[in-house]
Amino acid sequence: MRNIVIGNLKPLQNVSKNSSMVKFHVFSLNVTTHKAPEFIDITESIRKCLADSMVNNGTLNVYSCHTTAAIKINENEPLLLQDMERFLERAAPRNDHYMHNDFNVRTVNMTEDECPNGHAHCQQLLLGTSESIPIINGTLAMGKWQSIFMVELDRPRSREILVQIMGA
Amino acid sequence: MRNIVIGNLKPLQNVSKNSSMVKFHVFSLNVTTHKAPEFIDITESIRKCLADSMVNNGTLNVYSCHTTAAIKINENEPLLLQDMERFLERAAPRNDHYMHNDFNVRTVNMTEDECPNGHAHCQQLLLGTSESIPIINGTLAMGKWQSIFMVELDRPRSREILVQIMGA
Amino acid sequence: MRNIVIGNLKPLQNVSKNSSMVKFHVFSLNVTTHKAPEFIDITESIRKCLADSMVNNGTLNVYSCHTTAAIKINENEPLLLQDMERFLERAAPRNDHYMHNDFNVRTVNMTEDECPNGHAHCQQLLLGTSESIPIINGTLAMGKWQSIFMVELDRPRSREILVQIMGA
Repeated sequence: MRNIVIGNLKPLQNVSKNSSMVKFHVFSLNVTTHKAPEFIDITESIRKCLADSMVNNGTLNVYSCHTTAAIKINENEPLLLQDMERFLERAAPRNDHYMHNDFNVRTVNMTEDECPNGHAHCQQLLLGTSESIPIINGTLAMGKWQSIFMVELDRPRSREILVQIMGA
Repeated sequence: MRNIVIGNLKPLQNVSKNSSMVKFHVFSLNVTTHKAPEFIDITESIRKCLADSMVNNGTLNVYSCHTTAAIKINENEPLLLQDMERFLERAAPRNDHYMHNDFNVRTVNMTEDECPNGHAHCQQLLLGTSESIPIINGTLAMGKWQSIFMVELDRPRSREILVQIMGA
Repeated sequence: MRNIVIGNLKPLQNVSKNSSMVKFHVFSLNVTTHKAPEFIDITESIRKCLADSMVNNGTLNVYSCHTTAAIKINENEPLLLQDMERFLERAAPRNDHYMHNDFNVRTVNMTEDECPNGHAHCQQLLLGTSESIPIINGTLAMGKWQSIFMVELDRPRSREILVQIMGA
């Protein structure tokens, strides 16, 4: 038997707002990675985007432009980041067999510097490409322990993240 | 060989709308949890937020303020909830070794009542922090079997969920 | 020691825009599936929705109306799709024991043509129901290798995806 108790709804009245002028902003964020998997905390850079946008109420969407780099919100505790990196490695080991890595057979999307990265694509499946965060009174409405991470899954390189802000 | 058939696009014309007045609402929802993992159906509370907002067309974003509680949409069938709870426990067992749980070594983000919860953070990685649902003609455009869940991963406690509604 | 280098923020000024007229569009997309798991690339159909909407800057949300079909962004390389399908099968095997599949015991949400699909619900947990993509200057701001997939997890059937576009 479940006895579920859900508290009364608390409308945050100070952020209820009608606006006749909506702003749309997109920022591009370049991130240099050093290993894989690697959790890189991009929270402060995203806060700067929000400050630049002058948006007080609305939504901020963080979007990874890559198929082997993910967006995730979790806690920035250094030992935990190592735990989570090991967890991803175990979930889809680099040395498992992936047909995507068989360059004798594969013909599609082959590049000059193609590296075996089937594991990185499978790890990305478990994570995700975007997260949307409410903006309340000019600040990101994140919990005390939440940080926004770009997760490198493939190999060290330069990555592009988009930060989209809609609101008033 | 894949023979993919995708139906003609069906624009839902009755929800195409231009508006010169956009509303932004955020509601806070307190949820009391009783065990972990625990799937708690918050669909009805979220529908009340939508009704309160008077928004007819737009997007509703459900956001967990926590790093060990997730937002997920799935089916509310009691036996399935038990299956999914066991599935999460197997994916990142509570009793595995997590450096995050080694309080002899760890120095960062330590609180008075710190409990070992490395498994909960890893389970959260597999789930996620936000989901966005279309609002059509004043109702959530969810499928017949879909319910919105907050998933407790750590231990019984009080949790905060934000429900953000943007639209007209 | 982590030496994280994050590039200077690059605001995409050409997409910063204030608008006094916001558009809200929702399209319904029917997808016929042929097996499970099956990754079906729906990118082109979604691009048509965007073109129809005449929205230049804003957000596009792709939403699955189902609890055993997911939305995911990854690379459309045929061998990789097979790798990812096998990866999902291993993560939650069809033949594992799921109480949801025990029709002698289960009483909730039973339909005439009920099929055992506990594995599909668990696989869906690992994936997700929605992804939000920025729209910049009338195009989806996706990376070079990104395609949008609906992932069938249950069995061949007809599925409904909603494509919501908000912007100006």
